Amino acid sequence: MELTFYLPTKIIMGKHCVLQNAGLFSKTGKRAFVITYPVCYENGSVDDIGTVLEQQGIEYLVTSEGPANPELGQMKKFGDTAADFGADMIIGIGGGSILDTAKTAAVLAANKIPPGELYLNKYENRPLPVICIPTTAGTGSEVTPYSVLTIKEKNIKKSFGNEDLMSPVFAFLDARYTETLPAQIAADCAVDALSHGIEGYLSTKSNWVSDMVGMAIFNNFKDCTPALQEGVFTFEEREKLLFNAALSGIMINHMRTLAVHAMGYPLSIHRKLSHGCACGVLLGSFMKYIYGECSKKADAMYAALGVKDTEGFSALISSILKYTDNYSISELEKYTLESFEAAAAKPNPRAVDRQAVLEIYKRALL
Amino acid sequence: MELTFYLPTKIIMGKHCVLQNAGLFSKTGKRAFVITYPVCYENGSVDDIGTVLEQQGIEYLVTSEGPANPELGQMKKFGDTAADFGADMIIGIGGGSILDTAKTAAVLAANKIPPGELYLNKYENRPLPVICIPTTAGTGSEVTPYSVLTIKEKNIKKSFGNEDLMSPVFAFLDARYTETLPAQIAADCAVDALSHGIEGYLSTKSNWVSDMVGMAIFNNFKDCTPALQEGVFTFEEREKLLFNAALSGIMINHMRTLAVHAMGYPLSIHRKLSHGCACGVLLGSFMKYIYGECSKKADAMYAALGVKDTEGFSALISSILKYTDNYSISELEKYTLESFEAAAAKPNPRAVDRQAVLEIYKRALL
Repeated sequence: MELTFYLPTKIIMGKHCVLQNAGLFSKTGKRAFVITYPVCYENGSVDDIGTVLEQQGIEYLVTSEGPANPELGQMKKFGDTAADFGADMIIGIGGGSILDTAKTAAVLAANKIPPGELYLNKYENRPLPVICIPTTAGTGSEVTPYSVLTIKEKNIKKSFGNEDLMSPVFAFLDARYTETLPAQIAADCAVDALSHGIEGYLSTKSNWVSDMVGMAIFNNFKDCTPALQEGVFTFEEREKLLFNAALSGIMINHMRTLAVHAMGYPLSIHRKLSHGCACGVLLGSFMKYIYGECSKKADAMYAALGVKDTEGFSALISSILKYTDNYSISELEKYTLESFEAAAAKPNPRAVDRQAVLEIYKRALL
Repeated sequence: MELTFYLPTKIIMGKHCVLQNAGLFSKTGKRAFVITYPVCYENGSVDDIGTVLEQQGIEYLVTSEGPANPELGQMKKFGDTAADFGADMIIGIGGGSILDTAKTAAVLAANKIPPGELYLNKYENRPLPVICIPTTAGTGSEVTPYSVLTIKEKNIKKSFGNEDLMSPVFAFLDARYTETLPAQIAADCAVDALSHGIEGYLSTKSNWVSDMVGMAIFNNFKDCTPALQEGVFTFEEREKLLFNAALSGIMINHMRTLAVHAMGYPLSIHRKLSHGCACGVLLGSFMKYIYGECSKKADAMYAALGVKDTEGFSALISSILKYTDNYSISELEKYTLESFEAAAAKPNPRAVDRQAVLEIYKRALL
C-alpha cells in the first residue's frame, strides 16, 4: 500500500478559539496584513482578530476588498499592499475565495513576480506565513496549500500550490462565524465536502488514509442530515460541518477527485450552480454508473450515511440540495464535450468515456 | 467541540519508499548521523539508507549502538558524536527506543545542555531535523515529538518533547523492515497500538479526531486478527500493522492515555512484560469496569473489532497475547499502590479509585 499522510496546518477548533490562542498570532508574526470581506464584520470574526492583534501588540492593516471569485489579474495589489506595509504574516478571514487570495498574497508579498509565474509552483523567497479563519463550512482551503484563481482571458479556473511553501500554519475553526450563513449555502457546502469524501474514498487510488477520512466525513454528514434537510442547525451541527469541510481539505491534499468534479464545472460556469450543488446533483447518477465496480465500499459508505442503496442515496442528496432546474439535451451534450476528457482522466472506479458522461448527465438532469 | 488536529511529520508508506524518495534526504541535510542497532543490518533498512545517502552525496556516520531501553545517562554521547561529526540531520532506524534516542540526540547535538535539562522541553537552538524509519510496528514514535528515557537513579521512565521542535520531518514506513520481527513481538506491538486506540477513543476528552483515528485503528486491527492469532502475516497485514502503529502515534499526539497505561507500568517494571502485553492483559478487565459508562461507544468499537461484547473482546485479546502467567494477591496490591494515583488522574469514562484499580488487576491476572 502506497500512501502519504501529512497535515502541516495545525487545526484548532472550538468556540472562541481565536481569543483563546492569542499567543499563536504573535508567535507567527509582528505585522499582519488581514484580508477579508464585508460580511465578516457581521459574523464576529474580524472583531475577534482585531481584539487579538491589539492585545498581542501586532501592527495590522485590514482590507475588506477580498474578491468573491478571485482573478489572477486582481492578485498583484494584495501582494503589493502586504509588501508595502512590511507585513510578515497574512491572515485570511472568509470563505474559500478569501483564503485563496490570502495564500496568493503571501507568495506575491515575498516574491516580485508577474502573477502568471504563480503557476510555476516554485518561488525564490519563502511566502509569508498564512493564518486561515474560515467563515463558511466550505472548501477546506484553510488546510490546503492550493489557491484557485480565475484566468479571465481563458475563462478557466486554475489552481497552483506548493505543500512545503503554501500550507497555512494555523486554521482556526470557530463555528460562531458560520452562524450567519444562509441555510442553502450551508447545505451546498456540506455536499461539496461529502463529494470530496466520496470521490477520495471510491477512487482507484484510495488508500487507508482516504478510507479513514472518507468514513469520518460520511459519519459526520449523517449526523447532520436532518439539520441539512430542514435548514436549522444547532451549534454542534455547525461545528461538525465546519470540521467536515476541513476533512475535505485533508482529502484534497491526499487524493484527486473523480469524474463528478470535472463534470460539475460546466454547470457552475454556464448555469452558475454553486460548486457543492454542481457536484451534488451528479452524485446519485454517478454512483449508479460506478456501483457495480465498487459495491463493497459503496455499501459501507451507504451504511455510514444511513441509506440502503443508490436510490436511497440519490434521494438523500436531493432532499438536501432541493435543486429542480430543467436542462435540454443539447445543453448536456455541450457539457459532455467540455468535460469528458477531464472526467475520463480521473481515477474512476469504472472507466468513463464520452457516452458514459452524457449518460450520467442525462440521468441526473433530464 | 474543542479539538486540535496536526501531523507535522510527513508519513510516507510503501515498499521501497526510502529508495523511491531519495531526494527528500538531500533536501533535509548534507551530513547525517545515523543511529541504529545490529538487527537492522539484517532487515535491509540500513542497506537501503546507505544506498540512498551515497547516491545523494550525503556524508554520514553510522552507530549501531542505539540502546534497547535508552537511559538519560547514555544520551550525551549521541549528541556529542553528532555535533563532532558536524551532522545537520539525524536518521533513526529501529524500534521506539532507537527513534527516541535519535530525537534526543537531535536536541543535544544543537544544545550543549546537561541531559537533565531535556525535560525543560524548551531549547535555545533548534534541534536537528530527524528522519525516522521504524523497523517494528511498535510505538508510533516515528510521528510523535516525544522521547521516553529511563532515569536510572529513580527507576522511572519519563518523557519529554516539544511539538514544534521535535516532531520528525519524515517517517518512512516500509513493512519489508518488519518481516524479521518475531510473531509474538508483532502481536504485542499490535495490541499496544490497539490500546492507544481504545484509550483515546473512550476518553472523556475524546473528540472527532480521536473518534476518527480510533475507528481506523479498530478496523485495521480486525483485518489483521487472524494473522495475529496465528502468527503468520502477509505483506499487506504487516503494512497494516505498521500503519496502525503510526496511527497510534497520532493518537498519542492528540489524546492522553487512560488507567490502562498507568496500570501497565508495574507489570513491565516488575514482571518485564512488553509494553503492549502489559496494557493488553488489562484491557478486558478495564472494559468490564467502564462499560456501563460508555456502552454506546464501546459497542461501536466492538462492532468494528468484530466481537459481540466485553467477553468476546477479552477472548479476542487473550487469543492474541497468549499470556497466562499467574500473580499473587500481594503482588497486585503492590502494583495497585504504585499505580492508582496515576490511574485515577486519567480521563477515564468511569472514575477509578484504589479499590477499582485492585479489582481490575484481580479480574485480569488472578
